[in-house]
Amino acid sequence: MTTARMEAFSDGVFAIAITLLILDIAVPTDSADDFLRALGDQWPSYVAYFVSFATIGAVWLAHSAITEYLDRADATLIRLNLVLLLVVSFIPFPTHLLAEYHGHPDAERVAVTIYGINLLMASVLVWGLWRYSVGEHLVRPDADDEEVQVLTSRLTPSLAAYVVLIGVGIFSPLVAVLGFLTIALYLIVPVGLVRRRQG
Amino acid sequence: MTTARMEAFSDGVFAIAITLLILDIAVPTDSADDFLRALGDQWPSYVAYFVSFATIGAVWLAHSAITEYLDRADATLIRLNLVLLLVVSFIPFPTHLLAEYHGHPDAERVAVTIYGINLLMASVLVWGLWRYSVGEHLVRPDADDEEVQVLTSRLTPSLAAYVVLIGVGIFSPLVAVLGFLTIALYLIVPVGLVRRRQG
Amino acid sequence: MTTARMEAFSDGVFAIAITLLILDIAVPTDSADDFLRALGDQWPSYVAYFVSFATIGAVWLAHSAITEYLDRADATLIRLNLVLLLVVSFIPFPTHLLAEYHGHPDAERVAVTIYGINLLMASVLVWGLWRYSVGEHLVRPDADDEEVQVLTSRLTPSLAAYVVLIGVGIFSPLVAVLGFLTIALYLIVPVGLVRRRQG
Amino acid sequence: MTTARMEAFSDGVFAIAITLLILDIAVPTDSADDFLRALGDQWPSYVAYFVSFATIGAVWLAHSAITEYLDRADATLIRLNLVLLLVVSFIPFPTHLLAEYHGHPDAERVAVTIYGINLLMASVLVWGLWRYSVGEHLVRPDADDEEVQVLTSRLTPSLAAYVVLIGVGIFSPLVAVLGFLTIALYLIVPVGLVRRRQG
Repeated sequence: MTTARMEAFSDGVFAIAITLLILDIAVPTDSADDFLRALGDQWPSYVAYFVSFATIGAVWLAHSAITEYLDRADATLIRLNLVLLLVVSFIPFPTHLLAEYHGHPDAERVAVTIYGINLLMASVLVWGLWRYSVGEHLVRPDADDEEVQVLTSRLTPSLAAYVVLIGVGIFSPLVAVLGFLTIALYLIVPVGLVRRRQG
Repeated sequence: MTTARMEAFSDGVFAIAITLLILDIAVPTDSADDFLRALGDQWPSYVAYFVSFATIGAVWLAHSAITEYLDRADATLIRLNLVLLLVVSFIPFPTHLLAEYHGHPDAERVAVTIYGINLLMASVLVWGLWRYSVGEHLVRPDADDEEVQVLTSRLTPSLAAYVVLIGVGIFSPLVAVLGFLTIALYLIVPVGLVRRRQG
Repeated sequence: MTTARMEAFSDGVFAIAITLLILDIAVPTDSADDFLRALGDQWPSYVAYFVSFATIGAVWLAHSAITEYLDRADATLIRLNLVLLLVVSFIPFPTHLLAEYHGHPDAERVAVTIYGINLLMASVLVWGLWRYSVGEHLVRPDADDEEVQVLTSRLTPSLAAYVVLIGVGIFSPLVAVLGFLTIALYLIVPVGLVRRRQG
Repeated sequence: MTTARMEAFSDGVFAIAITLLILDIAVPTDSADDFLRALGDQWPSYVAYFVSFATIGAVWLAHSAITEYLDRADATLIRLNLVLLLVVSFIPFPTHLLAEYHGHPDAERVAVTIYGINLLMASVLVWGLWRYSVGEHLVRPDADDEEVQVLTSRLTPSLAAYVVLIGVGIFSPLVAVLGFLTIALYLIVPVGLVRRRQG
C-alpha cells in the first residue's frame, strides 16, 4: 500500500483544522466606541489561536518528516493515522473553550486541562506513528540510521513536558499555555537538525 | 479517464466533512460556575462527533481501497462518486440534529432515523461504487481475485445492519447510535484482513 | 507552465465550497414538540442545497474534462481560472439567501435573480476557460477533434437556458430553481457522451 | 527535501482561507420588506470579500511561481512557509472586522490598519520566501536569470505601497481598501510578464 492517499487526506485535514482556527476568534459586537480596547480585551483568543496554529503546524511537520522516511504503509498505520487526525481535528474545540472562558479561574483550569490532554494525545500519536513505522520496518531501507535516531529523539521529550504542563495548568493556566507554545516552537524550530548539519 | 482527479476531489470533500464535524460541538455559554458539568451535559455531542468521524473515516478507507484496485474510471463511476460525496457531505447536518435534540424523545427518534438513513445511503453508495467497478471491469487486470472477494464481503454486511438499527432507533435512539459506531469500527478495524494474512 | 498546481488549488476550492453548503441548512431551534414539521418546513433549504451541490459538481466535472485536454496553462488561463473560483466560492451566499427568504415573495425574487446570475457567471467562465484553451492552442495536440467539438457543444447551451430562467425567476422563483437543477443534472448526466460512444 | 508536500499543504490552506471568506458576508435577517436595500447596505462586505479574495489569489499565484522555480526545500524554507500560512489564514478576521464596522469612523480606522498590516505581512513573507530561496540556491540551476529578476522585481514594489496605504487608511479607510485592491490586481494581472514576452 502506498502512502500517497494517506498523505493527501492527512494534508487536507491538517490544512482545514489549522485554517478553521480563525473562526474561533470572535468579532466584537457593538464595540464601535472603544473598538481598540474591545479587540485588546480578547487577547487570550489570539494567544490560543497562535498556540494551536503552532501545534498543528508542528504535527504537520513531524508527519511530513515521518512519511518522507516511509517506504509503504500497512493497514494498522493507516488506522493509527486516522486516530491522529481525529485528535488534531478536535483541537479547535478546546482552543475555543480557552478563548471563551479566560478570566473565569475555575472554568479556565478545566479548559486548559482539556487543551493540554488534547495536545498530549496528538503528540503521543505522532510518536506512536513513528515508533510503529520503525518497529514494523515500514521505513525506507536506505534511510540513514542516524537520521532515524534524530527524528526519534526529537519526537520523544515533548511527551513528558506536556504531562508536567497539564499539572502546572491547574495552578496557572497562562503558564501552561505559554509552555504549550514553547513545545510547539521547539518542535518547529529545527535547532537539533541545524546543529547536526554543522557538526 | 484516470482516477487521479476524482481521488483528489473526493479526498478534499472527505477531509472537509470530517473536520467540519467539530463545529457541531457547541461551546457552552454562561457556564463559568459549573463548567465541567456544562461540558459533561453535552456528552451526546461528543458521541455523535465520534460516530460521524468514525463513519466518514470508514468511508474514506473503503474509498481508498476501491480506488487502489481501479485501473481507470468511466463517466458513470465519476457521477456515482459525486452522489457518494453528496451523501457524505450531508452527514454533519443529522449529526448536529442528534446532538441538539438529545433528551427530547420524539425529536430524537426523528433525528436518529435521518442519521441512520444518511449512513445507510453512504454505505450503499460505497458498495455500489465497488460493484459497478467490478461489473464494468474497471478493476486492474492484475488484481488478485481473492482480494476482490474479501473487499466485496467486507462492504456488504453493513447494509443489513444499518437497516436493522434504523428500526431499533425508533425504540432506543442510543442503542442505534452505539450500533452505528460498532459498524464504523468494524469497517475500520481490519479484522478480516489481519486474519487472512496470518492464514 | 504545468496545470498540476492549478488543478490542486481548484479542486481544493471546489471541494470546500461544495462541503460548506451544508452549513447553510439551519438546525431548527426549540422545535422539539413538532420536530418533523419544523424540519419539513425548511424544505427550500434542502432544494437549494441540492441545486448548489449539483451545480458545483457540474462545474467540477466540466473543469476536470477541460484540464484533461490541456497540454499546459498560460498566465491568462490561470487568471481566468481564479475568476471562476471567485464565482464558485460565492455560490454558498445566494444559496443561503434563497433558503432564508422563502415565503417572502419580493425578497425571494431578488434572491433567485442573484442566484441565477451567480450560476450563469460560473457557466460563462467555464465556457470561457474552454474557448480560450482551444483558441490559444493549449489543448493537447493529440486530442481528438470530435471530442473537442462534443465538449464545446455540451458547455454552450446552458448559457441561454440560464438567461431565460433568470427572467422566469421574476415571476416564479420555484420554477427558476427547478430549471437551474435541470441544467445542472443535464451537465452531470453524460447523455451525449453515452450516445456518442454507442454510435 | 522535495517541495511536493509543502505545496499540497499550502494549496489546502490557501484554498480554505479563500473559500471561508464567503462566511464573512452576513445574510440579512428580518429584511424581507426591503431586501434589495438590506443587501445593498452591506456593500462594504462585498468589497472586503473581493479585496481579500484578490489578495489571497495573488499570494497563491506568487507562491506557485516561486515553487515552480524551486529545486528543493530546506528546513528553514518550510518554517518560513508556515509563517506565511499563519498570516494568510488570519486574513478572514480583519476582513470580517472591516465589513462589520463600516460607518463607525474610529473603529473603521482601527480595522483598516489591522487589515493593512496583515496584507503587508503576507507580502513581506512571500518576498522573504523568494529572497531566501534565491540566496540559499534552492532555485533550479537551469532557471533563466532574467526570469528570476522579473519575479524579484514584481514581488518587491508592493511592500512600499502597503506601507503608504496603511498611513492613508488613518485618514480615509475607503481609499486604503481600494489601494489594497489595486495592489492585488496589479500582482494578479501579468502586465510585466506580457510585455516581456512581446519584447
